[in-house]
Amino acid sequence: MSGVIALLTDFGLKDGFVGAVKGVIKSINKDADIVDISHGVNSFDILEGSIILNGVYRYFPEKTVFVAVVDPGVGTERRPILVQTEKYFFVAPDNGVLTLPLKEQKVLKIIEITNEKYMLYRDTETFHGRDVFAPAAAYLSRGVEPEKFGKVIKDYKKIDFPEPYLENGYLVGEIIKFDKFGNGITNLKDLPDFEEITIKDYRIEKICRNFLEGEEDKPNLIKGSFGFYEVFLPEKSAKEHLNLRLGEKIRIKLKR
Amino acid sequence: MSGVIALLTDFGLKDGFVGAVKGVIKSINKDADIVDISHGVNSFDILEGSIILNGVYRYFPEKTVFVAVVDPGVGTERRPILVQTEKYFFVAPDNGVLTLPLKEQKVLKIIEITNEKYMLYRDTETFHGRDVFAPAAAYLSRGVEPEKFGKVIKDYKKIDFPEPYLENGYLVGEIIKFDKFGNGITNLKDLPDFEEITIKDYRIEKICRNFLEGEEDKPNLIKGSFGFYEVFLPEKSAKEHLNLRLGEKIRIKLKR
Amino acid sequence: MSGVIALLTDFGLKDGFVGAVKGVIKSINKDADIVDISHGVNSFDILEGSIILNGVYRYFPEKTVFVAVVDPGVGTERRPILVQTEKYFFVAPDNGVLTLPLKEQKVLKIIEITNEKYMLYRDTETFHGRDVFAPAAAYLSRGVEPEKFGKVIKDYKKIDFPEPYLENGYLVGEIIKFDKFGNGITNLKDLPDFEEITIKDYRIEKICRNFLEGEEDKPNLIKGSFGFYEVFLPEKSAKEHLNLRLGEKIRIKLKR
Repeated sequence: MSGVIALLTDFGLKDGFVGAVKGVIKSINKDADIVDISHGVNSFDILEGSIILNGVYRYFPEKTVFVAVVDPGVGTERRPILVQTEKYFFVAPDNGVLTLPLKEQKVLKIIEITNEKYMLYRDTETFHGRDVFAPAAAYLSRGVEPEKFGKVIKDYKKIDFPEPYLENGYLVGEIIKFDKFGNGITNLKDLPDFEEITIKDYRIEKICRNFLEGEEDKPNLIKGSFGFYEVFLPEKSAKEHLNLRLGEKIRIKLKR
Repeated sequence: MSGVIALLTDFGLKDGFVGAVKGVIKSINKDADIVDISHGVNSFDILEGSIILNGVYRYFPEKTVFVAVVDPGVGTERRPILVQTEKYFFVAPDNGVLTLPLKEQKVLKIIEITNEKYMLYRDTETFHGRDVFAPAAAYLSRGVEPEKFGKVIKDYKKIDFPEPYLENGYLVGEIIKFDKFGNGITNLKDLPDFEEITIKDYRIEKICRNFLEGEEDKPNLIKGSFGFYEVFLPEKSAKEHLNLRLGEKIRIKLKR
Repeated sequence: MSGVIALLTDFGLKDGFVGAVKGVIKSINKDADIVDISHGVNSFDILEGSIILNGVYRYFPEKTVFVAVVDPGVGTERRPILVQTEKYFFVAPDNGVLTLPLKEQKVLKIIEITNEKYMLYRDTETFHGRDVFAPAAAYLSRGVEPEKFGKVIKDYKKIDFPEPYLENGYLVGEIIKFDKFGNGITNLKDLPDFEEITIKDYRIEKICRNFLEGEEDKPNLIKGSFGFYEVFLPEKSAKEHLNLRLGEKIRIKLKR
C-alpha cells in the first residue's frame, strides 16, 4: 500500500465531519497519510463529486485509497462498495459517484462492504463517512484484503454524464461545472474541425494555450487542467461576466 | 504519545493563521501528525467551538493532543490551560471552550501554562494560537510532562450549555447549531415518550433512521452524527426552507 | 531537507486543484510532509499572496520548501523560479509573489526552472501548480540540487509594496489587507511619536496590547500577528462597522 488515503466529500470544513473521519482513520492506521481532495462538493451533487474526483485521481501514487462520500442516500439500501482497479482502490456509496473515474480504468474487483468487523458500531445511520467508509479505507490501507470486507459483486451504479451530441451540423456541448476562477468547464474533450463556436449570443474568439492570450471581456476557449475545454475570460470570471449557468450549451458549427 | 495534534479554531483558512500554527508545531516536533478538525468556528463563538470539538474528539486515537483556540480574550488575564484526561490532552484558553468535551471525561490534571520556555517570544499578545498553544501542544506531543508547563490548578471555566427544560407538560429543547446541510442540531440527546413534537408552526412528521425516509418539504427528526437529534428535510436545507434560527424552540408534548 | 512542503495558492479548496498538487508531490516523494498555508488568496492577487506568505514563512522549520502559486500569467513567458535563501527554498512563478518574504532574507541563489525532467508532461499550459511547481518542490524535498532544475539567474521580479509616506507633518499609511475577523491590517510596522491618528473621520482611540482593551465600537490600533499595526474593534469587524476599504488611508499627525 502507498499509505495515502485521499478524501472527497460534500461535508464542508466547518462542522468537524472531516475531522471525525480523520480521527477514525488515525485510530485504525496511525501511519495513514491522509490527503484532502475536496470537501466542498455541492451538497448531494454526485455528478460534481464524480467530475472532481476524475480530474485528480490519476495524479496520486499507485495503491492510493480514495474515499468518495457524496451520499444523499446514507443509511438506505444503497450499498457501500470497494472497487479495486489496476492502480487504485476506491471506497464509496454505490450511487454513481465513481462513474467517471472508473470509466477510464480497468476494474479488477467490486466488493459490497458488509463485514461489521471493519465498521464502527452505529446507533445512527447518518454518517457512514465516519462509521463505514473511513474504517474500510483505514483497514484497506493497513493491507486487509478486499475480499475480507464482503462479497464480490458484478457491477456498480453509473450516473448519466451529459455527453456532447450532434444536431443539424453542430456539435453541442455544455457547461458541466464552474471552477473557483469562474471558468466554465465544458464536457468537450476534443474539438472537431469547426467554422464557428458560440455560447449564448457570444462568439468564442480564440482557442488559447494560456489564459492571458484570450481576448479581453470576450469568451475564449482553452484545454483545461482536468482534460476538458473551458470557457474563460482573462483574469475575470466568465460565469459572472457572461452570466453563464450550469448546462449552458456551447454550439460548434462543423466544417463541411 | 500518539503523535496526533488535532486543531480546532475560529481562524478561517484564508489568512495563513493556521499555516503559522502548523509551522510552529513542525519546528518543535517534526514528527507531529497534524489533523484539522475545523477552522471555521464562527469568530469568537466559544459555544460553537465546544459543540464541534465535543462531536469529534472521541473518534481520535488515545493520547491525541487537542488544540482548541476560540479566544476573544487573547492576551488578557484569561489563562492558557492544559488538561489531561484519561485518554487525551487538551490545550486551550480557559474560557469555557473545553466545557462539553470535559464534561464527559475523567479529568486527571489541569495545568495553567506559564512556563515561557515552552512558548515563543512575543512582541504582541494577539496570537497565542501560534505563540503559546502551538508550542505547548508540540512539546507535549514530544513527551514533555504536563507539570513542566506550569502549576496544577483546581478548576477550569465552564460555559452555560442550553439544556432542555420541562414546562407545562412539555419538554422544550432548542436548536444549538446548523450544519453545512442546513440540518438544525438540537440540544436533545434522548426523546421521551411523546404525543407530538412541534417547531415553529410545524409538526415534526417523522422520527427517521435515515435522511431519505423523511417526509418531503416537512420537518423530520433524526438522531444525528454527534449524538443530538436533528431537524431535517430530505436533501434540502431545513434552515432555509423552514426559516429556522439559532435558539429556535422545539416543543415535545409529553405522553401522560 | 526538513521534508516540509508548505503551500500557498489562490486555487480555493473546492475544485480539487490542491488535491492534484498534493497527489503529484506524494507520487514523487511519499515522505513529503505537506502543510497548507492558504489556498484562499484572492484570485490573481499577487500582493495578497505575498503578504500572507510573508506573515508566516519564518515560523516554519529550516529547509522548508515553500510553493507559492498565484499565477495569472500561467503558461506565458513569465518564468518559473526556485529561490534558495539561507534558511529556506521557494518555488513560484516569477511574478513578484515572493517580493515580501525575500526582502528580509539573504538570497543565496535564484534558478530559472527549465529542466523538463523535473516537470510533468503537459498537453495544456493552464496548471503549472500541478505540472511544474509541485514536481519541483517534491524533487527538491528529495534532495535534488537546485542547479539541476535550470540555470542560475541574477534577479527576480518585485512588486510595488505600498510603503507609508510623509506628507505635511503626517505619516500616511494604508490598509493593505483585512483578516477573517475584519481587522484592517495596515502597512505600518512601527509608530512614530504622534499627536493623533485618524482613519476616515474616526480618531484612533487607543494603542492596545490585546483586543479586549480596545474602546467599544471605535477604532483601536494593535501590533498584529504578522508584524503590522491593525485597526480593530473589540469582538467586531472593523471592516464592516467602520465601512473600511482596501487602501483606506490612516493618517498619523507627527509630534513636533
